[in-house]
Amino acid sequence: MNIIDIINKKRKGENLTYDEIKFAINGFLSGDILDSQMSSLLMAMFINGMSDEETFDMTDIMLESGDTVDLSSINGIKVDKHSTGGVGDKTSLIVVPLVASCGVKVAKMSGRSLGHTGGTIDKLEAIDGFDVNLKEEDFVKQVNEIGCALISQTSELAPADKKIYALRDLTATVESIPLIASSIMSKKLASGVDKIVIDVKVGEDAFMKNIESAKKLAQLMVKIGKNKGKETVCVLTNMEEPLGNYIGNALEVHEAIEVLNNNGPQDLIDVSITLASLMVSLGKNIDFDDAKKEVIANLENGHAYRKFKEMVEYQHGNIDNIPVSKHVFSCKSSKTGFITEINAYKLGMIERRMNENRFNQDNLIDATVGFILNKKVGDYVLENEELIKVYLNTNDVNVKDILDCFEISDMSVPALPLIYEIIK
Amino acid sequence: MNIIDIINKKRKGENLTYDEIKFAINGFLSGDILDSQMSSLLMAMFINGMSDEETFDMTDIMLESGDTVDLSSINGIKVDKHSTGGVGDKTSLIVVPLVASCGVKVAKMSGRSLGHTGGTIDKLEAIDGFDVNLKEEDFVKQVNEIGCALISQTSELAPADKKIYALRDLTATVESIPLIASSIMSKKLASGVDKIVIDVKVGEDAFMKNIESAKKLAQLMVKIGKNKGKETVCVLTNMEEPLGNYIGNALEVHEAIEVLNNNGPQDLIDVSITLASLMVSLGKNIDFDDAKKEVIANLENGHAYRKFKEMVEYQHGNIDNIPVSKHVFSCKSSKTGFITEINAYKLGMIERRMNENRFNQDNLIDATVGFILNKKVGDYVLENEELIKVYLNTNDVNVKDILDCFEISDMSVPALPLIYEIIK
Repeated sequence: MNIIDIINKKRKGENLTYDEIKFAINGFLSGDILDSQMSSLLMAMFINGMSDEETFDMTDIMLESGDTVDLSSINGIKVDKHSTGGVGDKTSLIVVPLVASCGVKVAKMSGRSLGHTGGTIDKLEAIDGFDVNLKEEDFVKQVNEIGCALISQTSELAPADKKIYALRDLTATVESIPLIASSIMSKKLASGVDKIVIDVKVGEDAFMKNIESAKKLAQLMVKIGKNKGKETVCVLTNMEEPLGNYIGNALEVHEAIEVLNNNGPQDLIDVSITLASLMVSLGKNIDFDDAKKEVIANLENGHAYRKFKEMVEYQHGNIDNIPVSKHVFSCKSSKTGFITEINAYKLGMIERRMNENRFNQDNLIDATVGFILNKKVGDYVLENEELIKVYLNTNDVNVKDILDCFEISDMSVPALPLIYEIIK
Repeated sequence: MNIIDIINKKRKGENLTYDEIKFAINGFLSGDILDSQMSSLLMAMFINGMSDEETFDMTDIMLESGDTVDLSSINGIKVDKHSTGGVGDKTSLIVVPLVASCGVKVAKMSGRSLGHTGGTIDKLEAIDGFDVNLKEEDFVKQVNEIGCALISQTSELAPADKKIYALRDLTATVESIPLIASSIMSKKLASGVDKIVIDVKVGEDAFMKNIESAKKLAQLMVKIGKNKGKETVCVLTNMEEPLGNYIGNALEVHEAIEVLNNNGPQDLIDVSITLASLMVSLGKNIDFDDAKKEVIANLENGHAYRKFKEMVEYQHGNIDNIPVSKHVFSCKSSKTGFITEINAYKLGMIERRMNENRFNQDNLIDATVGFILNKKVGDYVLENEELIKVYLNTNDVNVKDILDCFEISDMSVPALPLIYEIIK
């Protein structure tokens, strides 16, 4: 077997066998196969597509390339939740304690910020003292005792995926649906859970630009889960503007706490309830509607918020004081009209630059910076009315860049649904 | 402009602009663009194809990446000849003096062995003393004085092509027709000639496996030449078996001398006459048939051979003694029947291993080794009759590997044409 023949086969549009994919991936991981060879193969996979069988094989091989978390000593069905990434998406902070408060175990490992999107681990670290680096035994113990834990990866899950993803990022092969599906699923399957709920973001500011491609990705991930005996449900949600009103690590924790206290913006509440209801429905094997009643009740009666506080305390965090930046700057609209677009991608990138600003030498991030949106798509704004608050620790705010993220028009645009479809 | 957007554009099947291709190629040459990025782009170019305009642009950019030979001080039309590569192809040794003997200037730069095919420069170096490294001014002077010269590249022609070719070789993107066409033509155009004749080899043992793809390549190269105002003619010739009977550097010089003395095998004579006639016809602006009459006359009357000797002497070579190997081993057929196939690729690779054998530490090659075919496709062979002579300096001949290159059957196969088509 040699890599040239394997690349050639895929280039001609033929399907690769398990052994051929394994030869390529393991060779790439060991360094026997060059970056240039792997990227050539990835581009051929992207353009010519991959069969379901090839995608299953690729997922398995990446999964087997590293460690697998053993959650077997946690009683009951463990349900995980993943998001394909969106700006302002703080749902994990809400959903993990909310689902646990309904009696479903959530042993969740999360990641850091990637590209223009935030990362749950970065957000948790905005909470003073919060320990994201539990040992695997402590992680398991906590889930058994209080029903949930939210930590950073304990061990090297799917290292082949990590190395391939870094290459895809450099070689314009990120957007391939089978490559995205196998990447997400290899990591989720390695994390040892029983069932998986995935929030597939759809919109200009997400990986999936339209419902058609999001649906394909969702269907493929559901199939991969089924193939491994791990029930997987996807929900397609709107990412044409930021989710909720707060963007930035500390600010997003504040907004999550709002929602857990039965307040907060409706879009964030609705997505959180949908995700939590799917997880509870899977974890308890009950109807979605029945699960949803429990979820709403636990938001209203304070159980969810108490579970959140319990989790934070268990992980040594202190939510009494989550500081935000020294300065707050108000950006005002230059004209009157309907807001027809908020560019979440650009806002996300500006926020990334702001939070890297203060500490970039230490490679730490400034959790206190960010934005609070005063208006969302569909709202009417008057000239000189506040559009967005900017939280920052310096005085160099580029108002023009921020205002450029908003489109304002005389005509209103029809509102898009928030939850498009559930794929199971 | 950034490379990710450029790769993405080609991945979607859109055409790249001149500036985008230039950004990619020059960035790759300078090291700003990674091997992995270039190979991803090359695979997208291969699978999605390239427009004529893109191919012209790519040729121009590679041509402009290095030096261009200035042949303007040579009077008259300079005609070049190129072969896409075949085993036993020693036509340059014959055609260069033959065409010059008809009064057409030939200032030819050749390459070394690549893959399973031999290289004209390696063959010339089998001639004791022959200087392939003339300075550009001496090269021009010689062509002006005696009408021809055959040398190795004097300066760095199309370095971008060289670097891209090395990457294509590793990443299974060699066989793309627009990439082959732009690669060949960028080098030929850089060598400063006025008109070009290209021998496009067709067959199992050539880059182009069938007439359809060979024709596409030929048509594209003719278009590229036209686009640069350099008339280009291609001839599609058979490469289902070695050309002529001799394979190996010194042995091929002997066979070329045979043909120049109006002897030698018919296939080699016919291809040489066709190529030379096309060159003379282009160089003198006369009909092919008239050119062919001159060419045949100059083979018969000894002018061609005298020109060859003149060229060799001018370049300090001595053809009185071109040594072949110490040992000659006769490989005999294990059965009686018709020869239906001779695998030129495998024979070429065995010859490569043999000639690297003795001197591999110094990275020199042993010019004295090789094969003489006693039988060709279509011939009838008896059990124990000689199929092939092996010339070597050691005793470790792998008879089985060599005999495996021959297919022998009870039934004869219909003979294929030697010259398929001329594309202009």
